[in-house]
Amino acid sequence: MPDKRADVAIIMGSQSDWATMRHAAETLDALGISHDDRIVSAHRTPDRLVAFAKGAREDGFKVIIAGAGGAAHLPGMAASMTALPVFGVPVESKALSGQDSLLSIVQMPAGIPVGTLAIGRAGAVNAALLAAAVLALNDTALAVRLDEFRQAQSDKVALRPSDEA
Amino acid sequence: MPDKRADVAIIMGSQSDWATMRHAAETLDALGISHDDRIVSAHRTPDRLVAFAKGAREDGFKVIIAGAGGAAHLPGMAASMTALPVFGVPVESKALSGQDSLLSIVQMPAGIPVGTLAIGRAGAVNAALLAAAVLALNDTALAVRLDEFRQAQSDKVALRPSDEA
Amino acid sequence: MPDKRADVAIIMGSQSDWATMRHAAETLDALGISHDDRIVSAHRTPDRLVAFAKGAREDGFKVIIAGAGGAAHLPGMAASMTALPVFGVPVESKALSGQDSLLSIVQMPAGIPVGTLAIGRAGAVNAALLAAAVLALNDTALAVRLDEFRQAQSDKVALRPSDEA
Amino acid sequence: MPDKRADVAIIMGSQSDWATMRHAAETLDALGISHDDRIVSAHRTPDRLVAFAKGAREDGFKVIIAGAGGAAHLPGMAASMTALPVFGVPVESKALSGQDSLLSIVQMPAGIPVGTLAIGRAGAVNAALLAAAVLALNDTALAVRLDEFRQAQSDKVALRPSDEA
Amino acid sequence: MPDKRADVAIIMGSQSDWATMRHAAETLDALGISHDDRIVSAHRTPDRLVAFAKGAREDGFKVIIAGAGGAAHLPGMAASMTALPVFGVPVESKALSGQDSLLSIVQMPAGIPVGTLAIGRAGAVNAALLAAAVLALNDTALAVRLDEFRQAQSDKVALRPSDEA
Amino acid sequence: MPDKRADVAIIMGSQSDWATMRHAAETLDALGISHDDRIVSAHRTPDRLVAFAKGAREDGFKVIIAGAGGAAHLPGMAASMTALPVFGVPVESKALSGQDSLLSIVQMPAGIPVGTLAIGRAGAVNAALLAAAVLALNDTALAVRLDEFRQAQSDKVALRPSDEA
Amino acid sequence: MPDKRADVAIIMGSQSDWATMRHAAETLDALGISHDDRIVSAHRTPDRLVAFAKGAREDGFKVIIAGAGGAAHLPGMAASMTALPVFGVPVESKALSGQDSLLSIVQMPAGIPVGTLAIGRAGAVNAALLAAAVLALNDTALAVRLDEFRQAQSDKVALRPSDEA
Amino acid sequence: MPDKRADVAIIMGSQSDWATMRHAAETLDALGISHDDRIVSAHRTPDRLVAFAKGAREDGFKVIIAGAGGAAHLPGMAASMTALPVFGVPVESKALSGQDSLLSIVQMPAGIPVGTLAIGRAGAVNAALLAAAVLALNDTALAVRLDEFRQAQSDKVALRPSDEA
Repeated sequence: MPDKRADVAIIMGSQSDWATMRHAAETLDALGISHDDRIVSAHRTPDRLVAFAKGAREDGFKVIIAGAGGAAHLPGMAASMTALPVFGVPVESKALSGQDSLLSIVQMPAGIPVGTLAIGRAGAVNAALLAAAVLALNDTALAVRLDEFRQAQSDKVALRPSDEA
Repeated sequence: MPDKRADVAIIMGSQSDWATMRHAAETLDALGISHDDRIVSAHRTPDRLVAFAKGAREDGFKVIIAGAGGAAHLPGMAASMTALPVFGVPVESKALSGQDSLLSIVQMPAGIPVGTLAIGRAGAVNAALLAAAVLALNDTALAVRLDEFRQAQSDKVALRPSDEA
Repeated sequence: MPDKRADVAIIMGSQSDWATMRHAAETLDALGISHDDRIVSAHRTPDRLVAFAKGAREDGFKVIIAGAGGAAHLPGMAASMTALPVFGVPVESKALSGQDSLLSIVQMPAGIPVGTLAIGRAGAVNAALLAAAVLALNDTALAVRLDEFRQAQSDKVALRPSDEA
Repeated sequence: MPDKRADVAIIMGSQSDWATMRHAAETLDALGISHDDRIVSAHRTPDRLVAFAKGAREDGFKVIIAGAGGAAHLPGMAASMTALPVFGVPVESKALSGQDSLLSIVQMPAGIPVGTLAIGRAGAVNAALLAAAVLALNDTALAVRLDEFRQAQSDKVALRPSDEA
Repeated sequence: MPDKRADVAIIMGSQSDWATMRHAAETLDALGISHDDRIVSAHRTPDRLVAFAKGAREDGFKVIIAGAGGAAHLPGMAASMTALPVFGVPVESKALSGQDSLLSIVQMPAGIPVGTLAIGRAGAVNAALLAAAVLALNDTALAVRLDEFRQAQSDKVALRPSDEA
Repeated sequence: MPDKRADVAIIMGSQSDWATMRHAAETLDALGISHDDRIVSAHRTPDRLVAFAKGAREDGFKVIIAGAGGAAHLPGMAASMTALPVFGVPVESKALSGQDSLLSIVQMPAGIPVGTLAIGRAGAVNAALLAAAVLALNDTALAVRLDEFRQAQSDKVALRPSDEA
Repeated sequence: MPDKRADVAIIMGSQSDWATMRHAAETLDALGISHDDRIVSAHRTPDRLVAFAKGAREDGFKVIIAGAGGAAHLPGMAASMTALPVFGVPVESKALSGQDSLLSIVQMPAGIPVGTLAIGRAGAVNAALLAAAVLALNDTALAVRLDEFRQAQSDKVALRPSDEA
Repeated sequence: MPDKRADVAIIMGSQSDWATMRHAAETLDALGISHDDRIVSAHRTPDRLVAFAKGAREDGFKVIIAGAGGAAHLPGMAASMTALPVFGVPVESKALSGQDSLLSIVQMPAGIPVGTLAIGRAGAVNAALLAAAVLALNDTALAVRLDEFRQAQSDKVALRPSDEA
């Protein structure tokens, strides 16, 4: 049974997307944000998609992170059935390296938005950070944690490149 | 009220797709195939999409032709909810000339097929011809008409190029 | 000697395409659909192509699945010489990852359709499923098997991603 | 002098981007969301960019919408200097039709997110709708207006295509 | 009835390709090379293609120039049925600007070569010049004319750009 | 006769490139930098190219700006025959919008550099500005003029977009 | 010292291209065509390029095969300095998989043709076959060998795919 | 503490770029040019970027080499804050092989130039050589060393390909 009190839903089209999307989960964990991770295949489980998307707001989610590859319809279809903000992560596909995933997610028609992140791991991490930025608008403690996360990230950048790295 | 006895459903994501998809309708007309043309937006009318796709077989449709542009989710989502053959037409998009439409339609994951045609008018005509080829498998009279259509098409090819053309 | 009573012909441009196209064959097997698998090179064996395509209907085939890579002319040329439905599978090419295969198959001019599937294995599986959908229009038993196949496919989608997968 | 109490900042790289970005402004207007529209060129006015981005949260903005074309650095650089959610709109460029704009905005490295929308007008409208979805998380009245906007949008989709349209 | 004594056959997939291919014809004219211009559609007139290609050497042709657009199969299929040198001209296509034409022509598998020229008018002119270079190997007078053509071409290049041009 | 005392040579592949390259000339004029504008076709006037490139340093040039389109070989070939800095401008081509020009110029192998600017007018302007930056390293007066040019450019950026613009 | 009596010159931009271009050499060997294989770098040895290209006809060459990668200028620059037919082979590049090589070779402006083959090994083989087709126009024995080569190639195509292959 | 007397600053977006950018450093070393290598992340350390770029001229740098990947904003943003010549190196990215890096760097708007080199190692080497060409304009000894470097590079090109290489 899903954790209805999670702030963020991470959905993905298949088990194979988890290798990418787990980076979203881990980033949310690092920021202390609750999340519920599910497989929802737009194509193989359309009923599950409808049920999830239509119920997402009522289930208490505030932000949806959706990852998919190839003809990636999950983020856009979720967005068509909920007014919650949806952030899409194009998973790197085999033949076209995620170019198909990216265009299938980002080129939504006017009316139904999907905030799209980069292809692959970077996009998954950033979907979590964008969700954090959204939630931090009304969560001062989270805002502080996010600032600290960003500051730590900056501090970790070495001044000079290392041959040993 | 839809004509439930039509063999082919032509669905498209918006009114603006009709300029392309009407070529499918006209080709079906030329071959004497009944069709029902509807606007079904995957993103703006997801309920209509679910109702249409789930009921398509019961409504008597045998083939679905679906046209859409940009992040074109209509053909794939229809295919996810019906076992009928679905043929997709990538409508030429403004910025990316239909490259986004093509990839969003053709790159379906294993399990849910969409037979994809060319971008734009040629694809719309050919979706109709492919539907005809499918229907002709069990309609001898249509098979004859399709053969004649193809023969006439061949006969119309001039032997030499004309400067007046 | 070819099995003239097979419903589906799977043709491919070379032995090397079999690694992809065998997924079409296996999917047809799983659905109990007879098929005949052949190598027909549009470029190296054009006579074989002409003989095959012109005789395909008479040989009892109902659907043709054609896979090829690079400047992939096989699906379109087969379609030019038969009124049977032709479904094309772009095989992933070395340098361009199947982008050339895809465009060479899908961008057919108005008049001769090829229903194109995704690049690579997913496309091969889906070509078989699309052929099944076509054949199921007049084969109630197959329609039931196809529904069951799709249902089983849906049922296999786990609710949550697994770290062990 | 900027309206410091606006919820959304719309920034763009040059006057020529306004033809695209005004659609974001108009959509926010339709939803009753206050916004402040500015030209901030990452390349020609880097100081203005730094001042804007670093002060955006203190200035009361909650969401930043940034549009730019070509080597579009504005959204990502704004995001590097504020923890507010930043949504990027790739403006259609002359030679490459916005493919450069899209990649320059969406392919951010892990750590600094930009939620990217579609190229051109659709992206501008959707950036506004995504901003609305974010703001609606804590503004019940806006949530209702957004639901109504979406419902009206769905209701406007005709059932059938019209030759007169 | 075709002029069987022409050295070069110019074939094209449709009347609409003539706007491009006439530049090949005019360039051959300028060089005093005989040519025979025909419409041969690989898809709509496959029999004509077979007859042409198989008979081309016997008909006295020495070089074949083939222009086509989209899923451009004409040059490669002609090359599969004749040992004569075949030069391919990718005609600019509507949606994809000839990128599909180019890849469909140039990416031939090992075994059947097509010497491919640039997309559009430049390619048509150059196909003629390449044919001339081939024919000039055994035609001293033509070699002289070709040298003069190239010299004149060089001489026409102004030293400085002109605002009036 | 060329002005041997000009600091910058602007060369271009054909008269048609002047519509783009004149923006380089005008920008140099605005900065008070002497320039010599010539047509040098790598393909039609290779001797002129060799003579120009080999003599450029001796002729007193300090920087070469080279613009070309399509298979744009001029910048790279000039760079192969001079140790002077060469800046390349990809001219927008008809079919491929300058993508071919860009790759032909920028993807030089290790050993012979071409500093490449954007496709089209922006690239031409920026080639001039980059040349100015180089020359300003040893020309204090020019450095001041360049700073003023950049400052004026920044000052011209309006704070807010205008509907009248 | 070069073998001045070879019919075909194979030139390539660097030693690393030999892994690709040796397939051209081997194919010429199989057909009994003499060839002379050289490294001629357009960028690092422009003088060698000029000397080679200007002297190629006098040296007895009839056809030039030129392979290069990245910003591949060798085929086009050779073609600019000889009236002999030049066939170009785009060598697969590291980052862009030969897309840059292909466009740099094929998109020649009107006036200077390069007959371009496929990216990589297939293109190298086919450049040799195209050279053979050209030479066979005036060499009956070679024409017979080429026909036999093509026939053997056709005969080697198995009728059915093999799981053991 | 940075070496303020270095002529060239090599900056890069992250430690992982050093594998590419060290080739710039090594090439400068080979030419006897002083350089200072730093990590400056446009996105994670924007303050460091501002401080570096604004102080670069005063710090004694004459040329800036900037390498970055993906949405590569570092070269363009550095160029926006210094009048020094900036040369950009697109680092090969994972999913898109550096196509995103290239477009993000090269497609700068008119007003702020970045001289862009090839993707990856070749670009890094060439950025160093271009910097050398610039510095050699006012350093006769360096000009000699650069000429020798180029001559040695030419001399190392073997006449014929080697199977052992």
